[in-house]
Amino acid sequence: MTTLFTNVTAVTMDPILPQLKDAFVLVEGTKIVQVSSRRPLGDFDRIVDCTGRVMMPGLVNAHTHLPMTLMRGYGGGRDLQHWLNDCIFPAEARLDSRCVRAGTLLALAELIAGGVTCVADMYYFCPDIAQAVADSGLSANLSRSVTAFQPVDNPADYLSCREMGELVDTWNGYDDGRILVDVSIHAEYTSFAAPNLWEYLGRYAADHDLGMQVHISETQSEHLDCLARHGKTPLALLDQYGVWENGGLAAHCVWVSDEDMALMAQKHITAVHNPVSNLKLGSGIARLPQLLQSGVNVALGTDGAASNNSHDMFEEMKLASLLHKGVSLDPLAVTAAQALAMATVSGAVAMGRSSGRIVVGQDADLILVDFTRPNLTPCHDIRENLVYSAHGGDVVMNMSRGRIIYENGAFLTLDLEQIRAEVEGYALPRIFGE
Amino acid sequence: MTTLFTNVTAVTMDPILPQLKDAFVLVEGTKIVQVSSRRPLGDFDRIVDCTGRVMMPGLVNAHTHLPMTLMRGYGGGRDLQHWLNDCIFPAEARLDSRCVRAGTLLALAELIAGGVTCVADMYYFCPDIAQAVADSGLSANLSRSVTAFQPVDNPADYLSCREMGELVDTWNGYDDGRILVDVSIHAEYTSFAAPNLWEYLGRYAADHDLGMQVHISETQSEHLDCLARHGKTPLALLDQYGVWENGGLAAHCVWVSDEDMALMAQKHITAVHNPVSNLKLGSGIARLPQLLQSGVNVALGTDGAASNNSHDMFEEMKLASLLHKGVSLDPLAVTAAQALAMATVSGAVAMGRSSGRIVVGQDADLILVDFTRPNLTPCHDIRENLVYSAHGGDVVMNMSRGRIIYENGAFLTLDLEQIRAEVEGYALPRIFGE
Repeated sequence: MTTLFTNVTAVTMDPILPQLKDAFVLVEGTKIVQVSSRRPLGDFDRIVDCTGRVMMPGLVNAHTHLPMTLMRGYGGGRDLQHWLNDCIFPAEARLDSRCVRAGTLLALAELIAGGVTCVADMYYFCPDIAQAVADSGLSANLSRSVTAFQPVDNPADYLSCREMGELVDTWNGYDDGRILVDVSIHAEYTSFAAPNLWEYLGRYAADHDLGMQVHISETQSEHLDCLARHGKTPLALLDQYGVWENGGLAAHCVWVSDEDMALMAQKHITAVHNPVSNLKLGSGIARLPQLLQSGVNVALGTDGAASNNSHDMFEEMKLASLLHKGVSLDPLAVTAAQALAMATVSGAVAMGRSSGRIVVGQDADLILVDFTRPNLTPCHDIRENLVYSAHGGDVVMNMSRGRIIYENGAFLTLDLEQIRAEVEGYALPRIFGE
Repeated sequence: MTTLFTNVTAVTMDPILPQLKDAFVLVEGTKIVQVSSRRPLGDFDRIVDCTGRVMMPGLVNAHTHLPMTLMRGYGGGRDLQHWLNDCIFPAEARLDSRCVRAGTLLALAELIAGGVTCVADMYYFCPDIAQAVADSGLSANLSRSVTAFQPVDNPADYLSCREMGELVDTWNGYDDGRILVDVSIHAEYTSFAAPNLWEYLGRYAADHDLGMQVHISETQSEHLDCLARHGKTPLALLDQYGVWENGGLAAHCVWVSDEDMALMAQKHITAVHNPVSNLKLGSGIARLPQLLQSGVNVALGTDGAASNNSHDMFEEMKLASLLHKGVSLDPLAVTAAQALAMATVSGAVAMGRSSGRIVVGQDADLILVDFTRPNLTPCHDIRENLVYSAHGGDVVMNMSRGRIIYENGAFLTLDLEQIRAEVEGYALPRIFGE
């Protein structure tokens, strides 16, 4: 299968050729095989005229919990502890495979329509999530979140570790690496009863060359409690147990210390910034400019739709760039270019992906944004418009690994009506009695 | 003309009946004439089935500069002074009537598509703005922004005051009050050379029963400079000159003092919160929870698209509600219900409008939001979904004063192609040499 994009205006995230104008981009199979100012010779299966559109690398959502989309807007107007204890945990206790499948497909539809081509997920019922991702055409790093509220004798026998192992055996590397399996420690505060798990999981990731996903210092109390318990920050404590030997995705990092930042830069640990969720839950505002200045790789995520309450990476880009301008009274604190990098190449690199840039040889994860809409007119600067003026709803094409999976409002891999019917007919009645 | 909405699910902003379900809403002429659970008798010109949609009052954008949409994304990546002096002011110096008309129509298209039915504007070339608003079908409070960098001998003879007077004579009350003219002092820092203007304009507003629009304490330096010059805050200083006798819209209020807040509550001065613009320009974060606790009426605005860079009031609602949760580490700091009120009834009241609520006798300023989209599924709580999950692009109908002016992506009063052609063929070449 070949697709030739003509009249391409693009932001590439390639430092050598950062923008394209009147260009041609040729995709063959799953790869970008040509980027040029001359029309490639030959016949092509599909020609897409990009006049009026702007191409950019597909967005990378580096932290979410896909099935929690079923709990979008559920229990709002409560403080965190009441929200979790009275609403979210009881709802999660009623989940089953079928609910998880439906909720994941719903989330994937939202992601695809909003221009995401790659997502990092941390949850349970992972085989159901993996099947939904496989069907959708998206790329994903999936992880089975491990918690332990009691000591664990033998980590290898621990249920969630066994589930993780099975997930690796079944799904890691699926479809030429479209699905990768990461290891996940949910957080220090949900597993400090069993530090031997940390050691086991860190070694497992290193031995199997897998990524690592952990919630790090999301709330102040989590950060301070860990310091009180262990005399170390969550990030440094887990480092002591060998958790970061293969790098990893540290989600949130709202309260990380300067020393944590230095360690992250040194160990290639990526901070996944989730500005909307961090505001919504009252967790605080991560020190993004300091993270960037410290040389930490920073990616962007939405977190689950229960605490966002959407999966719109354009919104995250805009807020990531704006928030720190306002907090530091510096209109140059985080630039549009930095926000774009966080939402694309920085996330892709962190997830071991060959995507996030429009460059020959990379995976063809590409989106088109309709720049003829009133909110994107005029266009003085493509990057400014993408970050500050575009919304997920302005995406008119999503190509994931060379395959167009969404075009002009139509889902080409998912049946949205069927997903909605399954959510409303099965999942919601089961979970919420609605 | 009568329009009957059937199967209505709605957020009304009416404290007596805050939500509707399976209801009927009947619009006759420009007014809502019936809200009931039984189908009204009779024949109707149009029946709109609202299944799958949510109705809410049209959004009220209480602060913007419509023609600045031509400068969307222009000169980004500069600090405020360089951005204004090197980019915005030179561009504004090349504006003419035709540019302003084109830029205003472009802004109005974006507002209409995003569910805004009423807007407060502060700029110059106001007759051109008024004509565009008249054509669009929207309601607007338009104001001729007055500045003075030299002393002014006779305010009544001062050009911008004369233009204001002509605007009042020609446009105030147009189409049964769809267009109202407000008085505007641009800001203390752009007019302190001529305090007699303040007195003149305050008296003019009181004598003619007009609203008042002023930028107040947007930046820290503006606030502190005024204190240094006069020993008073901008708000209190203008009060001394009788500016607020008729209340008014105080845009931004990022740095207002506790005493300012008390004065605002007492004098019915509305604070117009512009969270996106305040972040983008590095102005700071207004103390919204304190404003609300002080009993100040708070409305929401986008500010001009040059410093936002969009006109999406859903984005403002979400950020207004989220920002202060994160700043104060309190997930209950500003609720979804408060954000909805700011974006509807609080703005409408401040602008002297009989709208912002779905109540019999009110102007029929109504919008429908498509709740079948993936990002609005499921719906556990209508208000949570409207504030945290919806975007301007989810609006599928805009009814302004009983007239449907936008439906399913089609503009019924504006010709978007022609507007784009005028912007790109005339305005941009003239202003930017593009």
